[in-house]
Amino acid sequence: MRNLLLTISYDGSSYHGWQVQKNAVTVQQVFQKAVEKLFCEKIDIKGCSRTDSGVHANMYCVSFKTEKNIPCKNIIAGLNTYLPKDIAVTDCKEADPDFHARYSVKSKKYVYRICNTQIRDPFLKNYAFHYRFPIDAEYLNKESQAFVGTHDFSGFCSSRSDVEDTVRTVYSFSVERKGSEVIFSVEANGFLYNMVRIMVGTLLFVNEGKIRPGELAQIIESKERKRAGKTAPPQGLYLNSVKY
Amino acid sequence: MRNLLLTISYDGSSYHGWQVQKNAVTVQQVFQKAVEKLFCEKIDIKGCSRTDSGVHANMYCVSFKTEKNIPCKNIIAGLNTYLPKDIAVTDCKEADPDFHARYSVKSKKYVYRICNTQIRDPFLKNYAFHYRFPIDAEYLNKESQAFVGTHDFSGFCSSRSDVEDTVRTVYSFSVERKGSEVIFSVEANGFLYNMVRIMVGTLLFVNEGKIRPGELAQIIESKERKRAGKTAPPQGLYLNSVKY
Repeated sequence: MRNLLLTISYDGSSYHGWQVQKNAVTVQQVFQKAVEKLFCEKIDIKGCSRTDSGVHANMYCVSFKTEKNIPCKNIIAGLNTYLPKDIAVTDCKEADPDFHARYSVKSKKYVYRICNTQIRDPFLKNYAFHYRFPIDAEYLNKESQAFVGTHDFSGFCSSRSDVEDTVRTVYSFSVERKGSEVIFSVEANGFLYNMVRIMVGTLLFVNEGKIRPGELAQIIESKERKRAGKTAPPQGLYLNSVKY
Repeated sequence: MRNLLLTISYDGSSYHGWQVQKNAVTVQQVFQKAVEKLFCEKIDIKGCSRTDSGVHANMYCVSFKTEKNIPCKNIIAGLNTYLPKDIAVTDCKEADPDFHARYSVKSKKYVYRICNTQIRDPFLKNYAFHYRFPIDAEYLNKESQAFVGTHDFSGFCSSRSDVEDTVRTVYSFSVERKGSEVIFSVEANGFLYNMVRIMVGTLLFVNEGKIRPGELAQIIESKERKRAGKTAPPQGLYLNSVKY
């Protein structure tokens, strides 16, 4: 039995996230349909993470098992023919028999794009969060270091989540200005539901002075969702890389 | 009577071009609705050019007349509130009484983006033409100089057009590689229907060897649409600037 690891990227604008849902088009559903068309069999696909409606992926990993001997380069070409143009397969390789796209993850990195201009950029409607108030990226980068390390992030998790273990290790966090955009990057061993978007929303409260310098560490420690900021909107969020 | 000149930009992905049409949403229609909401009166809006379905504008100019004394900066802010997020007003100023967004144009510049990679970029689905065959940008740039000057471009015009004067002056044409993209830029005193898209499609024939080195000048001179290349798809085309 072959165990395949595929790398894909997708523009999430037209999808209700990754995970299959009733009455909504998801990336998993469209991807599974293309895979089953190519392999002519029922295939159970594992994705590396759930992503929300409107969230994008520069890199997303999936794994699945098959007996069929289609060469990797033909799988890439074949799937790219069957998939819609807002999803692309960029790599395919053989993985170990016990590899699992989700459970084998060592770390994932997300980026969040903010368009920090007075007048919005109409081309970024689905690709960045437009935020007018000037951002002091250097200051936020300094304050955001409070996220780094192993913490109970239950204050940075939407209430809809029912995960029991809310401790995660953040390996790095950065806030960087690139022209008129401000880019937030975070790498961790795992993420709670809406965690990155709440982190970004909380840093915007820091930017607006609603959270004082140095106060972020206490807010994390308090584990109180209401002390953190708003959940930033989905369209600025990209799953950027996955490490195994 | 004030005569106002507004500069806007728009992502054309969701629109059937600029010009008002029955049974289709166009940029003009949506823009006119926002203007009339702000000014509380019927307003006749002049656009600087027609653009096709799916074509974008980094800069597009409109003019209209009104008696109302709303200051320019409030017009910008007000319209940006009423307009959908894929259209933005970037400037507003008073123009001479006889200024007309279309008839006063001295020149316009279009750019055409090609994503020249083996595997498509899912984020460029609506924003560039994906063309796999490697492009020799330097060669195309050299050959494209045949377009520069005053020519009868009737061979570079879709048959649906009923324009009588098909002579236009192209001030500059360039083909440039930027990373994995190839950018075509053309400035002229005016453009025939689909002219830029046919020019790009013809240069792709040059790239593929279907048109020989130096043959482009004869094709222009022949005025035969069938000797030019295919019409390149709309999503790569941007109205980039307008000079008065």
